[in-house]
Amino acid sequence: MTAIAKSSAPGDVDTIVEQLQTMLADDLIATEALLKVRAASPVAMIPDLSGYIVSAGGKRLRPIVTLAAANAAGGANAGTHALAAAVEFIHTATLLHDDVVDESDLRRGKQAAKNVWGNSASILVGDFLFARAFTLMVETDSLEILGILSNASSVIAEGEVHQLAAAGRKDLPTEEYLAIIEAKTAALFEAAARAGALSAGPDGAQFADALAAYGKNLGLAFQIVDDALDYGGTTSVIGKTVGDDFREGKITLPTIIARRRGSEDDIAFWDRALDIDQQKEGDLAHAIYLIRTTGAAEATLAEAQAYASLAKTALKALPESDWTKALATLADFCVSRGH
Amino acid sequence: MTAIAKSSAPGDVDTIVEQLQTMLADDLIATEALLKVRAASPVAMIPDLSGYIVSAGGKRLRPIVTLAAANAAGGANAGTHALAAAVEFIHTATLLHDDVVDESDLRRGKQAAKNVWGNSASILVGDFLFARAFTLMVETDSLEILGILSNASSVIAEGEVHQLAAAGRKDLPTEEYLAIIEAKTAALFEAAARAGALSAGPDGAQFADALAAYGKNLGLAFQIVDDALDYGGTTSVIGKTVGDDFREGKITLPTIIARRRGSEDDIAFWDRALDIDQQKEGDLAHAIYLIRTTGAAEATLAEAQAYASLAKTALKALPESDWTKALATLADFCVSRGH
Repeated sequence: MTAIAKSSAPGDVDTIVEQLQTMLADDLIATEALLKVRAASPVAMIPDLSGYIVSAGGKRLRPIVTLAAANAAGGANAGTHALAAAVEFIHTATLLHDDVVDESDLRRGKQAAKNVWGNSASILVGDFLFARAFTLMVETDSLEILGILSNASSVIAEGEVHQLAAAGRKDLPTEEYLAIIEAKTAALFEAAARAGALSAGPDGAQFADALAAYGKNLGLAFQIVDDALDYGGTTSVIGKTVGDDFREGKITLPTIIARRRGSEDDIAFWDRALDIDQQKEGDLAHAIYLIRTTGAAEATLAEAQAYASLAKTALKALPESDWTKALATLADFCVSRGH
Repeated sequence: MTAIAKSSAPGDVDTIVEQLQTMLADDLIATEALLKVRAASPVAMIPDLSGYIVSAGGKRLRPIVTLAAANAAGGANAGTHALAAAVEFIHTATLLHDDVVDESDLRRGKQAAKNVWGNSASILVGDFLFARAFTLMVETDSLEILGILSNASSVIAEGEVHQLAAAGRKDLPTEEYLAIIEAKTAALFEAAARAGALSAGPDGAQFADALAAYGKNLGLAFQIVDDALDYGGTTSVIGKTVGDDFREGKITLPTIIARRRGSEDDIAFWDRALDIDQQKEGDLAHAIYLIRTTGAAEATLAEAQAYASLAKTALKALPESDWTKALATLADFCVSRGH
């Protein structure tokens, strides 16, 4: 199967991410410094491998949410920087392990680390970064924050195992799909936003629940859009390599809706094509065709939009500020993003 | 190559472990209850897999050291039980990941979990248990303990990566071998003993350094003996499947000493046979022969004995009690164990 790849759509999430990066410039400099210093080790393979994936960039969406939540709740400080770096380390550790689990060859547009250093190194450096995340969090001086992030970390792993167990279950209910993505993706955004608020000092606690609700719904919207983009979204301009989920037989919202709305022949197609041992040339193109013609692409994006709206609604519990406005815009653009 | 396996030698470590299990009966019941309850998850694969490896037993050596250290330093309590369970979860997580990294097929006398549930499940359930370990530690209410164990966890991963990077380095210096096993094995015993002491309350802190030194040296002795037993130790009675390290091309103290003391032919043998791509039928038997005839087996066990003595010396800083006596005996028996 040939992967379809194209440049990103205009007016996408990059604009608001860049705006937040500017607003958070000092906080992000401190966070980036921690990401570099705390991945250091005399064992060269560790900074080599972690530097490869950490410096490959990514949007730093989770640290940005952490820092912006803290600023919306009273102000980021050194503890918030340690927390933001810890959240990115946890995310990086899960990426390293996911690449081994999913047998993915590309990550952030480069060869996956496991293809350069091997599966073993990816597993162990992931463990290292995960442990370092907890060392960083001790510096927030808050057992509450450690409890929130350790709990989120076990929920993420639980979601990943759930996803593994659900692979190939073509009749996966929508609710179970949502439970999986809430655990594997939204839990970290939720914990990052809640802990960010708490890190802002005693005044931040009153906004912790609202920011946690923002983070959770943003994470859900983000993952649903990601799953839609894996089939090219709704536009003919496609911003990422498509078909990864399809080739792994992952059951995601676009396939659930397209199968539910499909004819008997369509259902038979999905049940065969999502069994990775039975996939044939041309199946991905037909899957994309069915997702478009059944309206599953629009319905998926509408679901994401609903969660983005819930995220924005949650922000109303906070005093309006440049931070709440930027976070609201981030929720909107997450849905309209092209990559 | 055929693995050689035999029943354990008499008078081994089991005797003192059983004695400690009796002394710690109440503490171990509380710890075992936590191991069961905190591995629970609605995602069935998690308790299935973790129950498989956790209930496969093992000696619970690390929880025993944690609990005995706390009792030697003033008394174990509910926080100590949470800590002991956390230490065992960290150990179990590293076992699950090690099995994938080492491609081991057996663990605790049973099929490795990865052979039953797959590599992906072993990686992700390891992550889950690691996260749950930190949630348990939050219950000790001590940021100091969290700092000690998160630091130990990153040191363990560092040691594992170091070992990975050192595979096939036939001229590995003894000091680098010791640095690797201090990180991958002794660091957890050290952290368990130190944190155990601290968990005993304010009076325990004065014994934390001594118990940490005990734990570190016990861990070194334990791993060196383990590495000797992989070549059958010094006796004709062999208590574990031998040759795993050899087949993986791991450089351990027996091979370092035997190579150092060997003839030119012997060195050529080691340099070929520890390259896993060049191993031949009969190599393991010849390796065992060289380790015996060069006195490398005795020298390895003498090194372990030296660390066991250091462990016992460290205990002298504590008031003598049934606990310090039992810990001293544990150090002795670790060296004389047959499996």
